[in-house]
Amino acid sequence: MTYELYYWPMIQGRGEFVRLALEEAGADYIDVARVKGIPPMMKLLEGPRASYAPPFLKAGRLLIGQTTNILLFLGQRHGLAPKDDAGRLFTNQLQLTLADLVVEAHDTHHPLGINLYYEDQKPEAKRRAAEFRSQRIPKFLKFFERILKHNGRYLVGRRLTYADLSLFQVVEGLRYAFPSTMKKAEKKYPNVMALNLRVKERPRIAAYLTSDRRIAFNEDGLFRRYPELDQ
Amino acid sequence: MTYELYYWPMIQGRGEFVRLALEEAGADYIDVARVKGIPPMMKLLEGPRASYAPPFLKAGRLLIGQTTNILLFLGQRHGLAPKDDAGRLFTNQLQLTLADLVVEAHDTHHPLGINLYYEDQKPEAKRRAAEFRSQRIPKFLKFFERILKHNGRYLVGRRLTYADLSLFQVVEGLRYAFPSTMKKAEKKYPNVMALNLRVKERPRIAAYLTSDRRIAFNEDGLFRRYPELDQ
Repeated sequence: MTYELYYWPMIQGRGEFVRLALEEAGADYIDVARVKGIPPMMKLLEGPRASYAPPFLKAGRLLIGQTTNILLFLGQRHGLAPKDDAGRLFTNQLQLTLADLVVEAHDTHHPLGINLYYEDQKPEAKRRAAEFRSQRIPKFLKFFERILKHNGRYLVGRRLTYADLSLFQVVEGLRYAFPSTMKKAEKKYPNVMALNLRVKERPRIAAYLTSDRRIAFNEDGLFRRYPELDQ
Repeated sequence: MTYELYYWPMIQGRGEFVRLALEEAGADYIDVARVKGIPPMMKLLEGPRASYAPPFLKAGRLLIGQTTNILLFLGQRHGLAPKDDAGRLFTNQLQLTLADLVVEAHDTHHPLGINLYYEDQKPEAKRRAAEFRSQRIPKFLKFFERILKHNGRYLVGRRLTYADLSLFQVVEGLRYAFPSTMKKAEKKYPNVMALNLRVKERPRIAAYLTSDRRIAFNEDGLFRRYPELDQ
């Protein structure tokens, strides 16, 4: 079966967490809007079992929306999460925590909402970003550092899960958006950074990252490099 | 088995979605911080399988964090979600969408972040709330209205799920925080409002809402009544 992933074609965004899981699983998938444009995606968004927003995944007759929900599904299907309740729920819990961080990262450049341009909320973005850099990044990374310190090579159990892939992606995003902040902070979280490298070097992930399927970070995505927000 | 719910004792907040599910299930639970205070909760937050933040639920040996994750667990255990993959995932998807709305509702009074008081971000809150009232509330409610219109009495399948309980709670919260906005908007979403009433009249929910276990809405919670944000 070929999965159909529906997501904005010009950004990594939330879709990237799904792309990374599909790539690591070696799954057969089409990134639909990159191949056929946006109209087929918009059409599906109008249906009765539609997702509120992209990304969503078509898996045979299933239409699955919300990033963490898609990963819950893929994790079980492709051995990217433990099979037992405790491990499966803990993986989902960590993914949800990463999703919370992603919302806050996005809010640094859009504190007043998504219907205004960044340029129309720059002073507010500076204030929000200052708090994010000084309070929120450390709190989140410290949390994941503690879990890794206790659990070992991966966040959950003895094998890679989709939460590891997502933590890799979040660190990449933070490095892109806040290079100066991260350069100073990284040494405090050696286990998080070691996991980042471990994921980056996995054969399928390494191949993906250098392929043209990997969209570059840019200023339309979740993680944006606005130098004024990094100082 | 008696569940232990850990959440802030003075607010409904995110814990309320869990409380409603436990109440509807007729489950035996202790709202720990309301009985024993906050220190036992803070202690558990330091453990290696800790949640990033409250709420979390102790279920025998399981310790489950993140609201939507707790509901995923309770839904399966107590028949508050369908057993098949499609229904179970769709319920989780809707709950995640409601969780997104809750974050946005919270951001109306804290657009610059949680480390500043509301009083220190009032002009920004007014701008963010204006967008929330005019763009976001209609988009979310329209989405749920469409699903109910298609599916019937409940959001998923033929029986009540925890997503129905949560949509009830979100409508209650919006009514509390934005009474004037909601008064004008409600007639556009008759199915959402009918569901709200249907949930409110369920015997266990009705009993809960009039008990002293139900904390009143207040200005420390997610949904806050600041009249200046409703006009």
